[in-house]
Amino acid sequence: MRHDYDVHRQQAEEIFRAWGMPDEKAAITAEILAWSDLHGHESHGIALLVEYNERRQTRPINFQSVPKIVRETPVSALIDGDGGLGHHPARFAMETAIAKAKSAGVGLVSVRNSGHFGALGYYTTLAAELDLIGIAATSVFGIRVPPTGGTKARFGTDPWSFAAPGEPGRPFVLDMATTTVASGKVRNKIVEGQQMPAGWGMDASGKPTLDPSEVMNGGFLAPLGGTPDGGSHKGYGLAAMVNILASCLSGSTLITDPMHSRQPYGLDVGHFFMAFDPGLFREVSDFRGDVARFCDDLRSTPPIDAAKPVMVAGDPERKVRDERRANGMPIGPGLHRRLKSIAADVGARWVMTEPAPAATATK
Amino acid sequence: MRHDYDVHRQQAEEIFRAWGMPDEKAAITAEILAWSDLHGHESHGIALLVEYNERRQTRPINFQSVPKIVRETPVSALIDGDGGLGHHPARFAMETAIAKAKSAGVGLVSVRNSGHFGALGYYTTLAAELDLIGIAATSVFGIRVPPTGGTKARFGTDPWSFAAPGEPGRPFVLDMATTTVASGKVRNKIVEGQQMPAGWGMDASGKPTLDPSEVMNGGFLAPLGGTPDGGSHKGYGLAAMVNILASCLSGSTLITDPMHSRQPYGLDVGHFFMAFDPGLFREVSDFRGDVARFCDDLRSTPPIDAAKPVMVAGDPERKVRDERRANGMPIGPGLHRRLKSIAADVGARWVMTEPAPAATATK
Repeated sequence: MRHDYDVHRQQAEEIFRAWGMPDEKAAITAEILAWSDLHGHESHGIALLVEYNERRQTRPINFQSVPKIVRETPVSALIDGDGGLGHHPARFAMETAIAKAKSAGVGLVSVRNSGHFGALGYYTTLAAELDLIGIAATSVFGIRVPPTGGTKARFGTDPWSFAAPGEPGRPFVLDMATTTVASGKVRNKIVEGQQMPAGWGMDASGKPTLDPSEVMNGGFLAPLGGTPDGGSHKGYGLAAMVNILASCLSGSTLITDPMHSRQPYGLDVGHFFMAFDPGLFREVSDFRGDVARFCDDLRSTPPIDAAKPVMVAGDPERKVRDERRANGMPIGPGLHRRLKSIAADVGARWVMTEPAPAATATK
Repeated sequence: MRHDYDVHRQQAEEIFRAWGMPDEKAAITAEILAWSDLHGHESHGIALLVEYNERRQTRPINFQSVPKIVRETPVSALIDGDGGLGHHPARFAMETAIAKAKSAGVGLVSVRNSGHFGALGYYTTLAAELDLIGIAATSVFGIRVPPTGGTKARFGTDPWSFAAPGEPGRPFVLDMATTTVASGKVRNKIVEGQQMPAGWGMDASGKPTLDPSEVMNGGFLAPLGGTPDGGSHKGYGLAAMVNILASCLSGSTLITDPMHSRQPYGLDVGHFFMAFDPGLFREVSDFRGDVARFCDDLRSTPPIDAAKPVMVAGDPERKVRDERRANGMPIGPGLHRRLKSIAADVGARWVMTEPAPAATATK
């Protein structure tokens, strides 16, 4: 079934408020989750409410956390996330970076003591929409990836994002995990009873495997590049870069410290944000014109398959967004049922519609 | 045969001077080429003198070029490379970024109208040795790589580098092409009569191939990730990011414009450099301590093969450097002969020694 974007977003907001999140923070967090769903990143969307609901019962989440700037210069800030979910501190951090870029040309913001913050593209797009280049990186909580040549997990999906303004409404937005794929794709292969393509994962001994169950049973996800021959030391190097920027710079718990020995409270995930003004170097309109031309040159590359034109980072997500804006946001009956039960348990207002009886009967 | 580092470096300097390069510029350019050889990146070392010698006869190189700052703020500079080789403007750019990082916390420097500048790790290491984080990216001249799903080359090896200070003398130094491998490795497979590992390249139709001759005959190098299933859109995305930073920001010729329609003179390659101070966020010693601990945690990962301990970006190059500092810089008889002939043609002083007759006889 499908709902309008506003209903979808509002449902998340109602649940966050019922969990004790202040109004403004609930609105921001719900917006960021709904943005992910709108752009086709359901793994970072309102499905996370189910995970947060489980987590808040085992390891309390501080829904009243108030991110604060603890160190600041005209070009930088260090923010303490105060141990809650990461969305609110992350947005505060990118807004701080943007404000500094607008006044000083560049803003670098480091965040400590934060949590998961959803899709990085949301934050870098904020910068690109204001004529700035945006960069974001974050450490993560779950570790699933060994360094090249190693047999112990040291990294997560440790993502990186870079956005630049070009043609109006079509910024370049790279948002990528530094692994070949995320674990969800491996799980899907198990469900489908299929082997994985080469380069997705390793077995428990660190050797490449095509069997998804070996990855899920003590094995590992591969860094981008997949195998040493395929350049996995580069994906490994990018993951290390992300962690130096996100954790070492902010003083957050290192991803190689799985006991989280330094953790104050919450997950103590660290982030890095940056915004800077292309106008430092050229007229912004000239820069945007060149980015637009460059992206169009790439799109005009003769395709291998005429039905699949070459796309530029940001294009696939905008295609999904346009379809969902027109036709509504899909939600499966399982998630719909679980969200309804979460809302009922905590007394949150239920704003989503019910599936039509006939539709559920055919599932 | 082998020479001391100083002899190796000086030989390059003598040839550059004989080509008309001013003394200081010749010394800097030779130092950067010799640094590459010292760290095992021979493709960026003094072997390039052979290529420069050919090029200067077909498409003149301005050896007297004087890079100039044409736009500047306390945190940024735009430099015009004046159409010569890229090493001198690139070093000037990173020194400018470092000076701004020392005074304002961060320095962003964009370079236009430049040329090849050798190994990126040289420049980012300059920053790391001064307690700063360093970033470098450059567009390149040769195009060999299609966007994912495309059948026309739009990119080169478009490299990215990131360095951070940690344990004294052991900075983290990532220096990577955004392709799986460089074309030299494909050529080596042809020489050895071997197939390539998966993910290195495509044939002329854009389909993955294991045959290196198909790559060299109208085919393509693969972006990091290798294949669409392996995440090649991520390597493609990183290459596009590098070009936005290096070309669009500086106003250099776009890599997708192979006719170089905007080229003033020289190759009009663009670069991007950045340095920033971790002291903006934490005590630098605390940051360095965390980077050192993080790198040591990675090195201590149990290896797949006990003979191959896990390494961190920068470790392999330092291993080669230490060996070459102790035993001298190797040079093959073919390169030795060609450099000697280049030096003789232009009247440059020859400071390298001759191979011992017995040694040449056994080659």
